[in-house]
Amino acid sequence: MAEKKPIEKIKDLGNDVAKQILKGQNPAIEVPIRSLSNVFFDKKTRTLALGENLSKRSFFNIAHAKKFLQTVEVAKIEKDLLETGKHASLRDVFYMAKRTIPDTKVNLVDEQPESDEIIQDLELISGLSREMMHVNANKMGSVAGNVVIEDRGDTIDWGKLGSGGWSIPSNVEDIKFKKMNANFVLYMEKAAIFERLLEDKFHEKQKGIILSSQGQTTRGIRRLLQRLYEEYKLPIYVLCDFDVYGAYIYSVIKYGSINLAFFSKQLTIPSVKYLGITSKDIEKYDLKKHLIKLKDTDIKRMQQVADYEWFKDNKAWQQEFKTMKQWGAKAEIQALSARGISFITEKYLPEKLKNKEFLE
Amino acid sequence: MAEKKPIEKIKDLGNDVAKQILKGQNPAIEVPIRSLSNVFFDKKTRTLALGENLSKRSFFNIAHAKKFLQTVEVAKIEKDLLETGKHASLRDVFYMAKRTIPDTKVNLVDEQPESDEIIQDLELISGLSREMMHVNANKMGSVAGNVVIEDRGDTIDWGKLGSGGWSIPSNVEDIKFKKMNANFVLYMEKAAIFERLLEDKFHEKQKGIILSSQGQTTRGIRRLLQRLYEEYKLPIYVLCDFDVYGAYIYSVIKYGSINLAFFSKQLTIPSVKYLGITSKDIEKYDLKKHLIKLKDTDIKRMQQVADYEWFKDNKAWQQEFKTMKQWGAKAEIQALSARGISFITEKYLPEKLKNKEFLE
Repeated sequence: MAEKKPIEKIKDLGNDVAKQILKGQNPAIEVPIRSLSNVFFDKKTRTLALGENLSKRSFFNIAHAKKFLQTVEVAKIEKDLLETGKHASLRDVFYMAKRTIPDTKVNLVDEQPESDEIIQDLELISGLSREMMHVNANKMGSVAGNVVIEDRGDTIDWGKLGSGGWSIPSNVEDIKFKKMNANFVLYMEKAAIFERLLEDKFHEKQKGIILSSQGQTTRGIRRLLQRLYEEYKLPIYVLCDFDVYGAYIYSVIKYGSINLAFFSKQLTIPSVKYLGITSKDIEKYDLKKHLIKLKDTDIKRMQQVADYEWFKDNKAWQQEFKTMKQWGAKAEIQALSARGISFITEKYLPEKLKNKEFLE
Repeated sequence: MAEKKPIEKIKDLGNDVAKQILKGQNPAIEVPIRSLSNVFFDKKTRTLALGENLSKRSFFNIAHAKKFLQTVEVAKIEKDLLETGKHASLRDVFYMAKRTIPDTKVNLVDEQPESDEIIQDLELISGLSREMMHVNANKMGSVAGNVVIEDRGDTIDWGKLGSGGWSIPSNVEDIKFKKMNANFVLYMEKAAIFERLLEDKFHEKQKGIILSSQGQTTRGIRRLLQRLYEEYKLPIYVLCDFDVYGAYIYSVIKYGSINLAFFSKQLTIPSVKYLGITSKDIEKYDLKKHLIKLKDTDIKRMQQVADYEWFKDNKAWQQEFKTMKQWGAKAEIQALSARGISFITEKYLPEKLKNKEFLE
């Protein structure tokens, strides 16, 4: 049986509400609960996941009425987006939903977190990501590699985009891979490193796809990584600073995030590997001179992250955290530049890849 | 007489120092002073500019010796970059310069601001931007439009890059425009708006180049805008939120920034125009319902910006600031979505462009 189309799933929701009304019932919508009490770390799949608790949101209930209306309104906005083929940002949806309820002075939503919440609820109700319902996250990041895609009727060669690369859209659901000639994907947290690799033609020499954001790993980037893994079984490697933030960026791609636990399946890649920077790299390549002293906030955050269930039983990572603490220091990817501007592309990365020196 | 090549200018600096040493002199380098005392608003060119005060940095002077060495070392790094044809980030240069002075325990630089300062000094000494000396700023932003460029041997059509656009590199000095079929450039501060315009094919329908960052207008973006203006005389329009931060983003593109006053000529576009959002737009399109209350920090920043010399005598902008204060509110570009998801591309922008409703 073919999976239902997004538009049909949204219509099902509306039809279900309409049926209840026609039967003279108090219309209600069932919504899976997203609070921490219903989030758990699934040791089998090794991802954060949502439990099975549901809450009922009904119209004739003072505590539910507004949320019920918001749910129906946002579902209608998503239906309109799907029907017109247009995409909107979370902020757009907020402004579209922010209208005054007729014959009252009450706005349906007053602040964006209200409509964001409902969009998340609708993801759970429909089982569709908000991207599939044409609601986009932030646009960020660049990609390059020996890959040809088709997108909105354009044929785009990721290997022939000069010093810039392709600008990753917020929504990658509809791009089609037409030609794939890559052995792995390297995701890095810093755009400056991406430029270094691109200039040195690392992606051509090593036959890899290189991909970076600036600061945050957006949902668009995570979905792109996931599609490359699921559709082509490409190994995904992560290159971050040797600090707790780098470790966390890696863990979000691998295990999911608490916020989006309800959507782990669509966003996580359990097989992803951490390439570096590791404490061993720092010793091997004599970079101790370039360590940066930890701040109190770094240490506090490290303790938090080390205690997360998905790090707690991971010996390799516990050792990394311990070393950071012992040294009282962290290190950046760019520290490799101290060994020469192209040390990273000519020696560091090829060696790590060849020797398969990864952290799990 | 042809302008000297960057590599020659850097070599001149080295030769000059060497000559002084061979003559048995105390070697010294003259550096224009960058402090506020030497920055002024040039009313004729209407850009921030640097005065003519110089300081002398000599080797046999305890107060100067380290800075002198830093200057020579960073110049050497830039020379190496130019000779190898490679580019580095500010952070890379810091790590490359951070070495221990032989027979001492002193590092040549300990923190990045030290090498950044020297890079700025070298811009002034040589008259070359750091991008011309292969030192790159942040990479950020996307562009689309009916334009074909050539970059690192690739031919790239900005109009055929699907839902993503071309990812703007940090350094746009070397890209070549091969085909230009655009009537104007629209720069917007938000990537989500860029995606809206791209999806609605605004750039095709209105024959414009669309260009966005996320958060900051990097030097790469400013130089790209400036090249489009200088080489093709395209009018540049800016689309920002109706708030003091939007006004400031606009003013930096138009007049320059205090930090980079010394480099105004290479980065500012005095003819740039502010398209919106304006207070008039908010009234005309009935968006008052979507105003957002000002915070104390907004009001404080507004007072600061309103007092800048380049805004002080600008009646139109003073009126905008006054209105923000009266309303106690600001508004976002996305508020237009309340009128419909494509209101911005089908009505708002075409009307503003047709009626030439700009603020100077």
